[in-house]
Amino acid sequence: MTMGQLSDAAAMFNDLELDRKSRIPAYVQIAAHVRNKMIGGVLKIGDRLPPNRELARRLEVHRTTVTTAYAELEADGLISSQVGRGTFVSALPAPSATTIMAGAFVRGISRRSEAAPSTGASLVAAASSSTPVKPSPMNWSAILLPVQRDRWLSGLLHSSSERDVISFAHGLPESSLFPTDDFRRSVDRVLRREGQALLQLGATSGYAPLLEFLCSNMARDGINVRPDEVLITNGCQQSLDLIRRILVGEGDEIAIEEPTYPGAISVFCSTGSRYATIPVSAAGMDLTVLEDVLMQRRPKLIYTVPTFHNPTGVTMSLSARRRLLELAVRYRVPIIEDDIYRELHYEGPMLPSLKALDQHDVVISINSFSKVGFPGLRVGWIAAPRIVVQHLNIAKQNSDLHASLLTQAAIFEFSRHGLLAKHIRKVRKEYATRRDLMIGAMEKHFPAGVRWNKPLGGMAIWVNLPEQLTAGEVLMHSAERGVVFSPGEHFFTAVQRHNSLRLCFTMASPAKIEEGVKRLGAIIKDRLSVNRKTKARRTASLRALV
Amino acid sequence: MTMGQLSDAAAMFNDLELDRKSRIPAYVQIAAHVRNKMIGGVLKIGDRLPPNRELARRLEVHRTTVTTAYAELEADGLISSQVGRGTFVSALPAPSATTIMAGAFVRGISRRSEAAPSTGASLVAAASSSTPVKPSPMNWSAILLPVQRDRWLSGLLHSSSERDVISFAHGLPESSLFPTDDFRRSVDRVLRREGQALLQLGATSGYAPLLEFLCSNMARDGINVRPDEVLITNGCQQSLDLIRRILVGEGDEIAIEEPTYPGAISVFCSTGSRYATIPVSAAGMDLTVLEDVLMQRRPKLIYTVPTFHNPTGVTMSLSARRRLLELAVRYRVPIIEDDIYRELHYEGPMLPSLKALDQHDVVISINSFSKVGFPGLRVGWIAAPRIVVQHLNIAKQNSDLHASLLTQAAIFEFSRHGLLAKHIRKVRKEYATRRDLMIGAMEKHFPAGVRWNKPLGGMAIWVNLPEQLTAGEVLMHSAERGVVFSPGEHFFTAVQRHNSLRLCFTMASPAKIEEGVKRLGAIIKDRLSVNRKTKARRTASLRALV
Repeated sequence: MTMGQLSDAAAMFNDLELDRKSRIPAYVQIAAHVRNKMIGGVLKIGDRLPPNRELARRLEVHRTTVTTAYAELEADGLISSQVGRGTFVSALPAPSATTIMAGAFVRGISRRSEAAPSTGASLVAAASSSTPVKPSPMNWSAILLPVQRDRWLSGLLHSSSERDVISFAHGLPESSLFPTDDFRRSVDRVLRREGQALLQLGATSGYAPLLEFLCSNMARDGINVRPDEVLITNGCQQSLDLIRRILVGEGDEIAIEEPTYPGAISVFCSTGSRYATIPVSAAGMDLTVLEDVLMQRRPKLIYTVPTFHNPTGVTMSLSARRRLLELAVRYRVPIIEDDIYRELHYEGPMLPSLKALDQHDVVISINSFSKVGFPGLRVGWIAAPRIVVQHLNIAKQNSDLHASLLTQAAIFEFSRHGLLAKHIRKVRKEYATRRDLMIGAMEKHFPAGVRWNKPLGGMAIWVNLPEQLTAGEVLMHSAERGVVFSPGEHFFTAVQRHNSLRLCFTMASPAKIEEGVKRLGAIIKDRLSVNRKTKARRTASLRALV
Repeated sequence: MTMGQLSDAAAMFNDLELDRKSRIPAYVQIAAHVRNKMIGGVLKIGDRLPPNRELARRLEVHRTTVTTAYAELEADGLISSQVGRGTFVSALPAPSATTIMAGAFVRGISRRSEAAPSTGASLVAAASSSTPVKPSPMNWSAILLPVQRDRWLSGLLHSSSERDVISFAHGLPESSLFPTDDFRRSVDRVLRREGQALLQLGATSGYAPLLEFLCSNMARDGINVRPDEVLITNGCQQSLDLIRRILVGEGDEIAIEEPTYPGAISVFCSTGSRYATIPVSAAGMDLTVLEDVLMQRRPKLIYTVPTFHNPTGVTMSLSARRRLLELAVRYRVPIIEDDIYRELHYEGPMLPSLKALDQHDVVISINSFSKVGFPGLRVGWIAAPRIVVQHLNIAKQNSDLHASLLTQAAIFEFSRHGLLAKHIRKVRKEYATRRDLMIGAMEKHFPAGVRWNKPLGGMAIWVNLPEQLTAGEVLMHSAERGVVFSPGEHFFTAVQRHNSLRLCFTMASPAKIEEGVKRLGAIIKDRLSVNRKTKARRTASLRALV
């Protein structure tokens, strides 16, 4: 969205369906919607908001309602007016340990339901934890580069007040399953053994015993690499960022699946970057589209999650994998294979990774301990041809010298005693059960017209709502009833009117899965019925005008 | 250096003075020199080496000697010949836990002195740990972006065989002083208390108790910031990289002190980037030059280490600090203040930081636990106006989501019980002693004409040799006698014939400081005498020719 494109600016309100019967005043709903768009990365600093009058007309509210909503946001330091030019985003909601995408939204709403605050302003302030930006002679806004993409990262619902929220939003492991005592003892052991060395600066490539361990582990999956063909990173997010640094120059194009991991969108599809999106269907990435893109646009890399794809859950067949490799080799375009969900495999044959099938050194594989182990540690790795790892090492050194030795040694010590393998066996069984429970509950509670797949592994189920509904609209209401999830738009590069959403089954207990899906089903049915009535009413009004 | 600039290519041998009396064959010295230039970032992939004939003439050796040196490097996969075009760098020495700038150099030499290997090739291979690059149909060299700067990072001399090397090369804490048991107990305590939360994904901005702790700590130094004006990073290297991401766009210029921290050069002065260097004299950054640069070139930021500057050790006076702030405010250019050495203060008044003096929100302050605590943890932080921190948060999220929670919580727990403060008191005393010992030894052993300063804090002494010597030449010989240091060229943006070097006094024991400085003094005297004789001989030959 650029300044001046008024109709575009107003388009961000397409998916706002004001709930006129809600206890939440309309102006608060509007302000929350804007905040949500800021948090979701749709609205960026410098973006223009639609004029009051235009928005009021579009939302069928009094102009004062929009003025009040904008005043709330202005008091919060998030937007500012410039005489003769319009209203612009001047800051983004402040980050904090508990401000999260869906969470911030929930918090605003749920506090409102507890007790009506004296002013709407305090409600919005509570949701954001931000206070007005201090005036600075520096005018930092003029100096800072445009924000590439806002905080898409889903944090955690830490505070106890949010314990009763049922979250399907986060593709994260269930922390109550963490073997924290085993882990603590591993850390203690390794610090006793080599504490002095672990506290000192280390090698950029990584902690040598962990590199060796990863190589023997990968060998079991058919990936034959030596330690100097591996780089330890702070997780897959950093791996993608480092790969971008060594392969994607100014003006270069990349090919990326869509929908996909939002972190990859942040890295590869920021403002000004060039990319081609390859649709993901039930069979995985569309290889016909890919071939056209490879032929015509010569991208610098192909990013794919072929196994238990995030967010759709689909797995690419063996023949499709072979075909993808052929294409990559023919057009000499590297594949970045994100294999982070591989070990979370619940049924069906386990297919070899692209890296294991690769005969031509065309695949760079990234993986991490975050899904199967502990995301808070931030330890992942890249396996690639040696010359690529040499370049990655330089990029890593320039980024942050090396990954924390304490965490590298801790996860190594924990893994080498078989404790990680044991933990994976446990969570795999538990997550399979939760997946089945969720699908059972969906079959029972979701109305006809809602569609989903059954993933053979991973952490989530991808749901498509009937086309007249948007995930944002459902989230607005489900959050009010204590159920959150990730709307589909987070996984797309461009804003559309999305009717898809992702339900993660790993973090909610079996009882919460049943209850959460039940509530979601009721809301979806309710919204379908409301939308039918609104449509009928609008058609009637139009007829009356004719 | 670009292809085709033959005289430039040959210029990298300007500082190679072959030792014709050495047990090390000339071809091995030449190959080691090339490797050193690769490790030092002078030679990059794609760079052309001078033709055999030209180099042989310049070095006054037989052409076969150069051919053999190149054959060694080719066997090692580091260079390759292209018919009709010349000889090019095709790969960089492989990273490994023990391959380091000075270290690799030392290892090659010292193994040679232990026992003559059967071929020179095995000597070079031993120093590099690299084997020929596997042929790949991908031709990665054609795809990978140019390497921005090679591995300047000095790693560690881990292996026991290097225990007898006296290292003044590394600006790192002395690990034998680490209170590893105290630290281990802190980690154990925090994992018992909140292990489950620490292993789960956290907030991008950082571990909340650590953010609070840093704020109260900074308040004692006159820096008043709130937790949402701080971002926790993986150390100062990442802080610089994140700051670059939010402030320096394609084609933007920055102002940087020279000499300076090599990691800052890597971040801000990579190929294609624009920068102005501001000389550092005994009074710190030259503010007259800075003002010219601010006025004429409008840089996006000024990077400075005003307190115990790395590598020169100088500290900017209070009046210079005020003047620098005035300039930054007048020209609206942010200052990036690297305050990493502040706590390592041995004598003289403790000056307030630029951040503490800043009345106009113009300073971004970066700091870390790496110099005063434990570099292996990789934990640092940035304090900046809130809008800057908001942007940094987004950059951090896109880089690696957040810093490891385990390490953040570990250093917090260790610090809040006063153990870090206690450790700092201990190392401050010990390092002050070592600094004094080193200066005493230099006064005793260094010949007239060598100059140095006495830093009031920090980790190193900056030494200027008589102009006819280069630090590279001295290092070549001192490494053979088991003493290493960082030659001055690592701290400059462009390759010059440097006669400066940095001697770190933190990592060598008192006895080693005395012995190492004594050996260095003997080598410097020896080289001065050899150079005088060579010059006389050359003058004589020239006269004979006339």
